[in-house]
Amino acid sequence: MQEVKRSKIKDLLHFEPGREVLAKGWVRTKRGNKEVAFIALSDGSTIKNIQIVCDKSASGMEEILSKISTGACIGVRGELVESPGSGQAVEIKASEIEIYGTCDPVRYPLQKKDTSFEYLRTVAHMRPRTNTFGAVLRLRSQMAYAIHEYFHNKGFVYLNTPLITASDCEGAGQMFQVTTLDLGNVPRNKKGEPDYSKDFFGKQTSLTVSGQLEGELGATALGEIYTFGPTFRAENSNTPRHLAEFWMIEPEMAFYDITDNMDLAEDFIKHLVRYALENCRDDIQFLNDRYDPELISRLEGVVGTDFVRLEYTEGIRILEEAAKNGVQFEYPVYWGVDLQSEHERYLVEQHFRKPVILTGYPKEIKAFYMKQDPDGKTVRAMDILFPKIGEIIGGSERESDLGKLEARITELGMSRKNLEWYIDTRRFGSCPHSGFGLGFERLLLFITGMQNIRDVIPFPRTPKNAEY
Amino acid sequence: MQEVKRSKIKDLLHFEPGREVLAKGWVRTKRGNKEVAFIALSDGSTIKNIQIVCDKSASGMEEILSKISTGACIGVRGELVESPGSGQAVEIKASEIEIYGTCDPVRYPLQKKDTSFEYLRTVAHMRPRTNTFGAVLRLRSQMAYAIHEYFHNKGFVYLNTPLITASDCEGAGQMFQVTTLDLGNVPRNKKGEPDYSKDFFGKQTSLTVSGQLEGELGATALGEIYTFGPTFRAENSNTPRHLAEFWMIEPEMAFYDITDNMDLAEDFIKHLVRYALENCRDDIQFLNDRYDPELISRLEGVVGTDFVRLEYTEGIRILEEAAKNGVQFEYPVYWGVDLQSEHERYLVEQHFRKPVILTGYPKEIKAFYMKQDPDGKTVRAMDILFPKIGEIIGGSERESDLGKLEARITELGMSRKNLEWYIDTRRFGSCPHSGFGLGFERLLLFITGMQNIRDVIPFPRTPKNAEY
Repeated sequence: MQEVKRSKIKDLLHFEPGREVLAKGWVRTKRGNKEVAFIALSDGSTIKNIQIVCDKSASGMEEILSKISTGACIGVRGELVESPGSGQAVEIKASEIEIYGTCDPVRYPLQKKDTSFEYLRTVAHMRPRTNTFGAVLRLRSQMAYAIHEYFHNKGFVYLNTPLITASDCEGAGQMFQVTTLDLGNVPRNKKGEPDYSKDFFGKQTSLTVSGQLEGELGATALGEIYTFGPTFRAENSNTPRHLAEFWMIEPEMAFYDITDNMDLAEDFIKHLVRYALENCRDDIQFLNDRYDPELISRLEGVVGTDFVRLEYTEGIRILEEAAKNGVQFEYPVYWGVDLQSEHERYLVEQHFRKPVILTGYPKEIKAFYMKQDPDGKTVRAMDILFPKIGEIIGGSERESDLGKLEARITELGMSRKNLEWYIDTRRFGSCPHSGFGLGFERLLLFITGMQNIRDVIPFPRTPKNAEY
Repeated sequence: MQEVKRSKIKDLLHFEPGREVLAKGWVRTKRGNKEVAFIALSDGSTIKNIQIVCDKSASGMEEILSKISTGACIGVRGELVESPGSGQAVEIKASEIEIYGTCDPVRYPLQKKDTSFEYLRTVAHMRPRTNTFGAVLRLRSQMAYAIHEYFHNKGFVYLNTPLITASDCEGAGQMFQVTTLDLGNVPRNKKGEPDYSKDFFGKQTSLTVSGQLEGELGATALGEIYTFGPTFRAENSNTPRHLAEFWMIEPEMAFYDITDNMDLAEDFIKHLVRYALENCRDDIQFLNDRYDPELISRLEGVVGTDFVRLEYTEGIRILEEAAKNGVQFEYPVYWGVDLQSEHERYLVEQHFRKPVILTGYPKEIKAFYMKQDPDGKTVRAMDILFPKIGEIIGGSERESDLGKLEARITELGMSRKNLEWYIDTRRFGSCPHSGFGLGFERLLLFITGMQNIRDVIPFPRTPKNAEY
């Protein structure tokens, strides 16, 4: 079969009929009658299959067909012809079929009988072969590319911040420890504690929970940077919204104030949604038709609207007013409270019916590095709240004043020792700067309409689960 | 200073003179005489500085200038004028200067007096502010983008394989363990061993040493995939070529045989080098002029030549011949030996004087998953050997025959239990496929001409070192 070059199905479907073609892929279905067999072939390049028509009277065809079942891997040579059936423009009239790998229909894990997402998570090594996970993984890849392209075109430097870190060992309960010590025989120091001087890095190390602080080092040297890499949380949360290992995008920009930061974040997220609508239409249409009939309209809604920009204080006023008027919230609303998902969703889905950027949060509920407002009460934080998802982006202008940053670190009783390198950015040529973080899987939940975060990453890591 | 929009220096340098401009950045040097001061300003957008000319007789100028020293962060408004000096076409005649952050010249870690790479590694949080590391980090970013763009344009799916894994716990001495157990009080099971059922994932887990096996799951479903992410080795190697945390690119392609694999790898690496020469010329020129006068010619050499494709057996013959003719090798050469760096460099730098793709290695020195040749002795491995770097890419066609793969696993005494998911790819619809791996930092050593791998990653992790 070497004389014809193999074509991907994505391309084949747009060729003019009449050509000799070679397709390779996996059998999705085989059906037919006494004279003809129809094979739906997929090669992962598109959500669509190509239909293969096999004339059973051809020499050897019946024998070959007898070995082909769902999941088998084959190569098919034949003529691309107009399809008389509906649903496809062209199909392949097979002249030769080669079997690369058969597939035992009894043992094959992807059976018609159970296609629930719960079941497919138990065979996550095979689920990329299904239509749904093929679509999700292609979308994931396209979104990753759109992110790199967006920042590259703006001149941002892609900065790889470290995964293994010794700098953020506070709140270690939430972090994964990284070690080469023998857990069956941990060496001890004189105090009887684990002797980390014998560990690989000579000290206690963990997996990063954020690349932001290192990102600030990059921004205050290179101007505009972004990170895009894995991030870890050892939270024992078995929910549809939590992963122990997930991917984050964290841009950080010198000379951006909070307004520049909001402008960038809004433009960025709209760009990504628009990119998906324009470049991944087949996969999104499939997910829309199969699972979530409002998916496309929700995506279009985000692209076509100006996000509301709302002060936290005003947000609280709206929520208090709503409560007064009979809206039932499970959690109380008052100035100073950290908003719950129900509050965010009320603002976004009921009150404004569009995405909201909430700013000016009380400093007590936000991180130490955020720029303090002159009132001494609020900080220049910004959270972008989305329909269905809630918070999709969190960011802030950073405190660039050395004295204020140091005072806040002391006030919160944080250990300065591990932060001296970070404080150096304010000590030497400090500059106003801002940044934000986007959880990649949160974005993908929004783009795909999937309900469970375990279904938008190839190999989810959650409590008690690290298969493959 | 709000009426003029800030421009990046990369752009400013190409503007027509006569415009009012606003530049923001960090002071590289300040010099001058009684009448005028000259400030070289950098903002990280380019290796080049913009020269700021300050008339000391202007109101308040002397006072402002007295606070400005190397490392300070400032904003400068003024007219862009033709520069009378050599070395730059334009400069800014300052009308207004704002200081964002001063920089104590006594305490600033980036002093003229010690700029050795060894010293700069001890202040890695500041070194991105130097010319050299600015250039290296911009090149790193550009190369990452070129990689994503290359595969995206070919329709490859970017697949995020897991970082935390339970599947590859053999050879655990080389792996970092990931745990939430309290090392001061490790729970024990009845046998007295660490009780991993109490660990976060309910079993022993480590950081991945390669995404390839999971990549094969993607390729045998989606067709063509690539990974690009962090990878870990707990080797206690303090050398200029080893990192405990580094980034790998691993493409994996269904329906590619070893020749397709070589074709792709050669095209890929040439594309990256060409991209660097065409898109990052200023930074490469700087590194060429400052450190390595053969850098550009070495890069051009790779782009303009067909790589040699050589069987291992023939390579051994050439090396034996050379030894017979008086070439001194430290390590012996005979069929079956794993080539040492000196052997690879002889072939590439002395014998052929161009990159070499070595194939058909003895199966004993290669991994279990490589496709066995009919002779029973060799496998379809391929290593690409580069001048100065040695092996830059390693790959193979994969064994797609279930029986042969299982026999090899048994022969090597490997535990099948953790590999059943991988074997499933051969059990159900097995397909011919190939792939390779490129160490990102190895590529960057070649592209930048830097000598030490710790100098091509922002925050290197090596034995006893996990700062920042």
